[in-house]
Amino acid sequence: MRKSEAITRKGKKKLFLAKVFVRLKEGVLDPQGSTIKRALEDMGYDGIEDIRTGRVFEINFSSEDRNKSKVLIDEVCKKLLANPVIEKYKFEVKQR
Amino acid sequence: MRKSEAITRKGKKKLFLAKVFVRLKEGVLDPQGSTIKRALEDMGYDGIEDIRTGRVFEINFSSEDRNKSKVLIDEVCKKLLANPVIEKYKFEVKQR
Repeated sequence: MRKSEAITRKGKKKLFLAKVFVRLKEGVLDPQGSTIKRALEDMGYDGIEDIRTGRVFEINFSSEDRNKSKVLIDEVCKKLLANPVIEKYKFEVKQR
Repeated sequence: MRKSEAITRKGKKKLFLAKVFVRLKEGVLDPQGSTIKRALEDMGYDGIEDIRTGRVFEINFSSEDRNKSKVLIDEVCKKLLANPVIEKYKFEVKQR
């Protein structure tokens, strides 16, 4: 329903799926990772050296073309999904 | 430091990196995703159909071989990283 609205409203929009991966920069402490590591050690797993956590976002959206959609997602990452001070992000956009 | 300890302690352990991706199953409500979608709409982005969120874990660890390490990570996912009732997970393990 929403899909066809998005297409028909502007006439020539295409559908994309963006996968955004956000993680803490190297050197930034990751308390969630440390907690998981400790929990696993308490559960008897040894040999774990390090755990880092991150977030993934899958965004389904419509846009005029691939290049515009990449610019859009980059903007969304900077403004909302990642904190550029302590996090880095990468993403891939593919047409559906 | 920690690396060489892990190797020398058991003699013949290899180093692996596992990337675990955990996401909500289809049909499970994703309030974080909906909130981000609404925030983006308020910021003037339209054409967004749907946002789903997930988590990533990067685990550096040592194990005797690749197969054992996969069994280990699968167990860790089931026991600690994912809630199998509402979440699904996938992972990849590669030797470092």
